[in-house]
Amino acid sequence: MTLSRHARGVYAIAPTPFAADGALDLESVDRMVDFYAAAGVDGLTVLGQLGEAPKLDHAEALAVVRRVVDRAAFPVVVGVSAPGFAAMRSLSVAAMDLGAAGVMIAPPSSLRTDDQIVNYYAGAAAAIGADTPFVIQDYPLTFTVVMTPEVIRRIATDNPNCVMLKHEDWPGLEKISALRAFEEREAMPRLSVLCGNGGLFLDFETERGADGAMTGYCFPEMLVDVVKASAAGRRDEAHDLFDAHLPLLRYEQQPGIGLAVRKYVLARRGVLATDTQRTPAARLSSAAIAEVDYLLDRLARHDARAKVSS
Amino acid sequence: MTLSRHARGVYAIAPTPFAADGALDLESVDRMVDFYAAAGVDGLTVLGQLGEAPKLDHAEALAVVRRVVDRAAFPVVVGVSAPGFAAMRSLSVAAMDLGAAGVMIAPPSSLRTDDQIVNYYAGAAAAIGADTPFVIQDYPLTFTVVMTPEVIRRIATDNPNCVMLKHEDWPGLEKISALRAFEEREAMPRLSVLCGNGGLFLDFETERGADGAMTGYCFPEMLVDVVKASAAGRRDEAHDLFDAHLPLLRYEQQPGIGLAVRKYVLARRGVLATDTQRTPAARLSSAAIAEVDYLLDRLARHDARAKVSS
Amino acid sequence: MTLSRHARGVYAIAPTPFAADGALDLESVDRMVDFYAAAGVDGLTVLGQLGEAPKLDHAEALAVVRRVVDRAAFPVVVGVSAPGFAAMRSLSVAAMDLGAAGVMIAPPSSLRTDDQIVNYYAGAAAAIGADTPFVIQDYPLTFTVVMTPEVIRRIATDNPNCVMLKHEDWPGLEKISALRAFEEREAMPRLSVLCGNGGLFLDFETERGADGAMTGYCFPEMLVDVVKASAAGRRDEAHDLFDAHLPLLRYEQQPGIGLAVRKYVLARRGVLATDTQRTPAARLSSAAIAEVDYLLDRLARHDARAKVSS
Amino acid sequence: MTLSRHARGVYAIAPTPFAADGALDLESVDRMVDFYAAAGVDGLTVLGQLGEAPKLDHAEALAVVRRVVDRAAFPVVVGVSAPGFAAMRSLSVAAMDLGAAGVMIAPPSSLRTDDQIVNYYAGAAAAIGADTPFVIQDYPLTFTVVMTPEVIRRIATDNPNCVMLKHEDWPGLEKISALRAFEEREAMPRLSVLCGNGGLFLDFETERGADGAMTGYCFPEMLVDVVKASAAGRRDEAHDLFDAHLPLLRYEQQPGIGLAVRKYVLARRGVLATDTQRTPAARLSSAAIAEVDYLLDRLARHDARAKVSS
Repeated sequence: MTLSRHARGVYAIAPTPFAADGALDLESVDRMVDFYAAAGVDGLTVLGQLGEAPKLDHAEALAVVRRVVDRAAFPVVVGVSAPGFAAMRSLSVAAMDLGAAGVMIAPPSSLRTDDQIVNYYAGAAAAIGADTPFVIQDYPLTFTVVMTPEVIRRIATDNPNCVMLKHEDWPGLEKISALRAFEEREAMPRLSVLCGNGGLFLDFETERGADGAMTGYCFPEMLVDVVKASAAGRRDEAHDLFDAHLPLLRYEQQPGIGLAVRKYVLARRGVLATDTQRTPAARLSSAAIAEVDYLLDRLARHDARAKVSS
Repeated sequence: MTLSRHARGVYAIAPTPFAADGALDLESVDRMVDFYAAAGVDGLTVLGQLGEAPKLDHAEALAVVRRVVDRAAFPVVVGVSAPGFAAMRSLSVAAMDLGAAGVMIAPPSSLRTDDQIVNYYAGAAAAIGADTPFVIQDYPLTFTVVMTPEVIRRIATDNPNCVMLKHEDWPGLEKISALRAFEEREAMPRLSVLCGNGGLFLDFETERGADGAMTGYCFPEMLVDVVKASAAGRRDEAHDLFDAHLPLLRYEQQPGIGLAVRKYVLARRGVLATDTQRTPAARLSSAAIAEVDYLLDRLARHDARAKVSS
Repeated sequence: MTLSRHARGVYAIAPTPFAADGALDLESVDRMVDFYAAAGVDGLTVLGQLGEAPKLDHAEALAVVRRVVDRAAFPVVVGVSAPGFAAMRSLSVAAMDLGAAGVMIAPPSSLRTDDQIVNYYAGAAAAIGADTPFVIQDYPLTFTVVMTPEVIRRIATDNPNCVMLKHEDWPGLEKISALRAFEEREAMPRLSVLCGNGGLFLDFETERGADGAMTGYCFPEMLVDVVKASAAGRRDEAHDLFDAHLPLLRYEQQPGIGLAVRKYVLARRGVLATDTQRTPAARLSSAAIAEVDYLLDRLARHDARAKVSS
Repeated sequence: MTLSRHARGVYAIAPTPFAADGALDLESVDRMVDFYAAAGVDGLTVLGQLGEAPKLDHAEALAVVRRVVDRAAFPVVVGVSAPGFAAMRSLSVAAMDLGAAGVMIAPPSSLRTDDQIVNYYAGAAAAIGADTPFVIQDYPLTFTVVMTPEVIRRIATDNPNCVMLKHEDWPGLEKISALRAFEEREAMPRLSVLCGNGGLFLDFETERGADGAMTGYCFPEMLVDVVKASAAGRRDEAHDLFDAHLPLLRYEQQPGIGLAVRKYVLARRGVLATDTQRTPAARLSSAAIAEVDYLLDRLARHDARAKVSS
């Protein structure tokens, strides 16, 4: 299973499960993989920003990759962003050896000009090797690096192993349209475009030409259903389901505490044994927990899957 | 009418109306003031970030203030953020002379440390004069200045003319709780807290202790109704109405093109003669216009006020 | 006198003189203009970053321009950077009416991509009008906007009224070489390149092809002599004089307190009546004053002009 | 040898030597350690920003530490800055096991408020363990994190294993004075303060109370002599030597290409076998090389140690 420019559907961003004492919780990893499989995802991404990757050391990172790849029947993408190419190459080679389908690379926040960004990805593409497919993570809100459609076109054209865009620019709808327009007039090779940014615009992103979602919302079933309904042209159905989830999704998409919300819900859903994060971490206050519970109750009136045992 | 630390309700952020040729459209200003009055707002804020204030020269800015103050039966807050205190003072004095209720001040993006922020507001408070009440605009996403609750406590304590917080930190719910906790144990004087950030968390902000909203969503009626329902303890009603608007509200809250969405809807609603912005401006593509129209149609099924003539 | 693409020599960045009570000190303006004339400068730039422009209101800004233009026998450039094009146009039109030779425009710090920068300058060039020559201020350290040589090439090519680059990138020597190489193969029209950044690399910038300096070092005579010696091929002489001034120049080039150093020395030299800055301002401690005095004493051993009465 | 709050003198920042093919060059490491010993340094810092640490993988980083510690007769500080505490702890424990005297920690660029910075160092101090002394790297120009003297006071007070400040704020002289004033009135424990920022203000930093230098200028002999002369009260001698080196030092202190200059000179001095950097790296043009050679020739007239064979 190797990631290609024609990948479609939902690649869930997986959190990293920890036990209450902060140790890796590999049993929860197994349960989590099964949960995503049951939700119908097409792939999984591990060691992303919201996978607490920087809080793992090298050996732990590989232990997570191995456990996920061994259990999953779908492609696994591994985040390998690193301050330098040497560490990026080390992790990338190890991940691919373990059976990963590809890697994901975010830009360092020091990049500013178009050429700096293009050159950085040329260096990264060379560092990981031509046989390793990679995903561009385009998330200006977090990384402060702004990529124009033209910059993405150049990266995709220059590097045959660039196969996917994790699109999380905001606003970002016109960017999808611009990239698809480039492709139509053969100004660039096709990229698989999966959308992140918490899924906040997934309802329209699919209509603009995105191939699906790559994000970690705590109800991946919704992402799967919305992408399918939209692809099948059942527009109102897609929006109705999306809108029912939007109040919770918006709450989960807050910077910092968003991951706490996600882990809390996944623990309540029985996927994770605990909602533990490693430090530094934002934690939910009792008021915030009550707000999430209230949102779950309200959601359950529209989507029975949100009925979670208290 | 002078702004006080006990202000409550909804202060709408007003856009600045332009004719198709870019000239100030003062007739639309009148219509807009009447529209906000009919929507039940408690006040109006002009010359904010989304009021295209930097695109007006000094004389135009004062013309807008004069026209709004003359027509409005409610307090008017005027944005006076400026690169230096001299221009800030000039505009502030002129606005108060024209009958403004107070002014709003955003921090320059160069501020970093706690002391820098506190010192800046001390200088600004002195520049506008002790008799001029002011609003802190706390919007890290746009201004890149991060204020802890402690910093806001210090500013409110040091400067008697600091009366209100335009709260638009994200995430921001815990900040409201922290400030109200300071007040309860008399560690700081009361501040009026009105919430911005497009209203994206208004449903919970009121529950955390906010006094209302200061934002420019294109259906101010919703803001007014949610704040009232929440204050009256009709929680589900507040959330139901809020959730119905959330898909459109989320679309309008996009950086850059958000103002284009807002002006487009206000023009469709007959408030503005045109949706013209002065350059530089983001414009709506035909795809985006169709998306907004679709969202309006969907909203109208829940809220009849969203039925707008085509 | 209109600024052209062939301007050469030293354009001093003038501070704005204030009396001890913070009022504009127009008599010091006269003395200052005479001082720069005696130092042999080829032009003067007012209302720049280090001219405390944001601390002046509109009327004061014009008063400074009028006084300088009326007295100067050389071209005067006026800084017109503003948060929006309306205020920029107002100030620019007024300055040119008063007899300015051109205007200087710095980019707003929100610009990131190549296209954003090029588009901003297209908008600015249109706002000030085709008959008004302008200077690009390329100072990433302060403005956080990074312009590649290619971006500058595009701006210079697109806008006939773009005539000069105030070059203060750091490092910046290769940028000068790259621009001159563009010109040699006729890929862009000639730009006058005057160097800022406190003059910290002036010794080599002239050798790379710069036409001179536009900076505010407190001994403009040195800038004039170095540019002349370098242009005449007297390399060692240029470096010897430059090196003698470098310890003080480096001290003056500190962000924030640099302007305090500059005003202090100009006051000691009898040019300014006081070294007053308007708030907010960094002030020299007694330790810092003693350090500057020590540097002046050391400099006087190499350059008699640094002997200033105590 | 464990780093203490009373450390003094010069800790050179060591580059990482590579062979022409990019492999680690451990023989040059030996020669480099001998070179620094002959120059009279009091310690060495490896794997700093200018040690290309992010371009090494974990095994390579440890190989460098081992080789340096084994050969050096003075304390060795190891940079362990990392995106997360897990990797930081791994590298720190390994480095101390190999015989390092302490570690150096830079703040992640996402930190903004005073409390965020203090909390980050509390987490880092705990992660590396109470027995491992650490150095705060305070370099706002590169890391965009601004620490007030009060923040440094809090970190030094809260964490007994915080023993040293690598001071490279700019401007920074008043910060040294403020910290020493805190110490004098016993508001904080003593910190060893060694200055970086290329050494650009070392002449005055020692006079303000700094204990010495921690920087990588290509003539460490000058740093050693200046610190000694200043400590002995031979002020003019210290400044005379410093001023002679300032033109080259200023050239080497350019961001990006500064390391290329440093490696080039160290290669010309016979310390490094090659001036190779791993990608991404800024390289010297032929014009830049000629400029450095010219500066070396000029320096050699004042300091015979700068006579290097061509």
